[in-house]
Amino acid sequence: MKKALAFDIGGTKIYSTIIDETGNIVSDIDKFHTPKTLDGIKDTIKSQILKYENKVDIIAISTAGAVNNENTAVIGSTGNLVKGYYTIDFPKLSNKPVFIENDANCAAWAEYKIGASKGTSVSVMLTLGTGVGGGIIINDKLLKGKSGAAGEMHFKMSTEKHRKCTCGSWDCFEIYASGTALKIDAEEALKNPEVTTYDVMDGVKNNDEKMIKIFERWENDITQGIIGLANLFDPDCVVLSGSMAQFVDTKKIEEEVNKNIVTSPTSVRLAKAGNYSGMIGAALLAFGKGK
Amino acid sequence: MKKALAFDIGGTKIYSTIIDETGNIVSDIDKFHTPKTLDGIKDTIKSQILKYENKVDIIAISTAGAVNNENTAVIGSTGNLVKGYYTIDFPKLSNKPVFIENDANCAAWAEYKIGASKGTSVSVMLTLGTGVGGGIIINDKLLKGKSGAAGEMHFKMSTEKHRKCTCGSWDCFEIYASGTALKIDAEEALKNPEVTTYDVMDGVKNNDEKMIKIFERWENDITQGIIGLANLFDPDCVVLSGSMAQFVDTKKIEEEVNKNIVTSPTSVRLAKAGNYSGMIGAALLAFGKGK
Repeated sequence: MKKALAFDIGGTKIYSTIIDETGNIVSDIDKFHTPKTLDGIKDTIKSQILKYENKVDIIAISTAGAVNNENTAVIGSTGNLVKGYYTIDFPKLSNKPVFIENDANCAAWAEYKIGASKGTSVSVMLTLGTGVGGGIIINDKLLKGKSGAAGEMHFKMSTEKHRKCTCGSWDCFEIYASGTALKIDAEEALKNPEVTTYDVMDGVKNNDEKMIKIFERWENDITQGIIGLANLFDPDCVVLSGSMAQFVDTKKIEEEVNKNIVTSPTSVRLAKAGNYSGMIGAALLAFGKGK
Repeated sequence: MKKALAFDIGGTKIYSTIIDETGNIVSDIDKFHTPKTLDGIKDTIKSQILKYENKVDIIAISTAGAVNNENTAVIGSTGNLVKGYYTIDFPKLSNKPVFIENDANCAAWAEYKIGASKGTSVSVMLTLGTGVGGGIIINDKLLKGKSGAAGEMHFKMSTEKHRKCTCGSWDCFEIYASGTALKIDAEEALKNPEVTTYDVMDGVKNNDEKMIKIFERWENDITQGIIGLANLFDPDCVVLSGSMAQFVDTKKIEEEVNKNIVTSPTSVRLAKAGNYSGMIGAALLAFGKGK
């Protein structure tokens, strides 16, 4: 059976493991803090490749940042990764074929192949974490757009310049639906810059009415965004993943979405492919495409 | 050369003509007021079919309302058409193959084949008229979704329930970007329910500062919506069509969009395929697909 050396490169951590054709993880997960320099990142990846490339058929990289349509390079800047990250020539790092794809796209593909959206023809995945990522699958293909950057969840939730988004523009879905957004909701409601998302979730657990109201506003903003996505894509399902997804009531969101769309009913589900879905998706994509 | 008997069925008018394989209109355009009854509509279409079906290879219908993925039936209700419109069994109306598709999708296809988005791989078309229609083309295919209803421009511009949308939900792009929306903008700004979109456009022409401000707010709302679409689809271009498109400054919108997106630059263009793009697109789609 074919094997891939898979990586997940994020702003704080780099993970690496070996994954087989069926999406099974067949070795230990190696973990690293993401180095703060370009050379540091390259060295971390290279040393793993040197160690393992002879045992695998392909290198499969799930990475922060948009990836080109040829799956060979990160395009443009990536916010939470070191400056110049996009200059890394990934295919040159190994003698084996190297395949790279955006991490949200990889996770969406894992959900589609072995997880929550398996068997669907159109699905939208949202990763609700510090930020919001997106991966859209239409008839067995990732939506990539002309340059590879499609699926960015930066559509407006307001036109009145309430909140500056991390992307530099204003009032994007990301800044209303992320973990960061929940903190901002709480800061605004309580006029307390020290409040954290943990405080909110603790409060919700303990039936604190103020915190419940803050949480419900956040959950409603996610719902409103999904309504738009459902009308645009008419998906079989919307999959919620990421560290914040566990807190939302998918049944409640699904009901509210289906009450407010002009397309046919959709399903809202939690992701199932697990914490390493980025690497699994990268490997499954790489086996399918290669280079 | 193959020929199609093409129809454009809208809430107020039905058009019909013959179109050849290259998208040329090769007969007169027949025009009818859309009958107020189901039988009236069926009779109008049938009588045209009886007259012309022997001269053509296929019947191609561009219609208001979402159309299923098999291109045989309208799904669900269509707002401005008679109740039960979706029950019409279009394939039974002729002995020739019958192909139907949503009007905005047809117009987008005409732009893609012979108009403003010719040669692109990913394009988004917006029809700015009384309402807002949408047609999205991704790698030589219309985005249809699981049921055929994708491309509905009902994503939120606010989460604060400012404006009820025609779809029954709140604050959709349609109710901020349509001609109707411009009238609402003016009504709200001038506190005058009698003001019309014509008044606004007249005022703009005559340098009336109030009217210019109202118009610019509307144009900005369109721009903000396009920013979201550009981040989601990473399109080569966004095509603006419909009766209201002539009024907007596409260069200004394009500049503002490209300043505010995280994907790569896109182009904003006026439609070029003309008033009968719905019928042209239906015919070109029908020749490509048939049944």
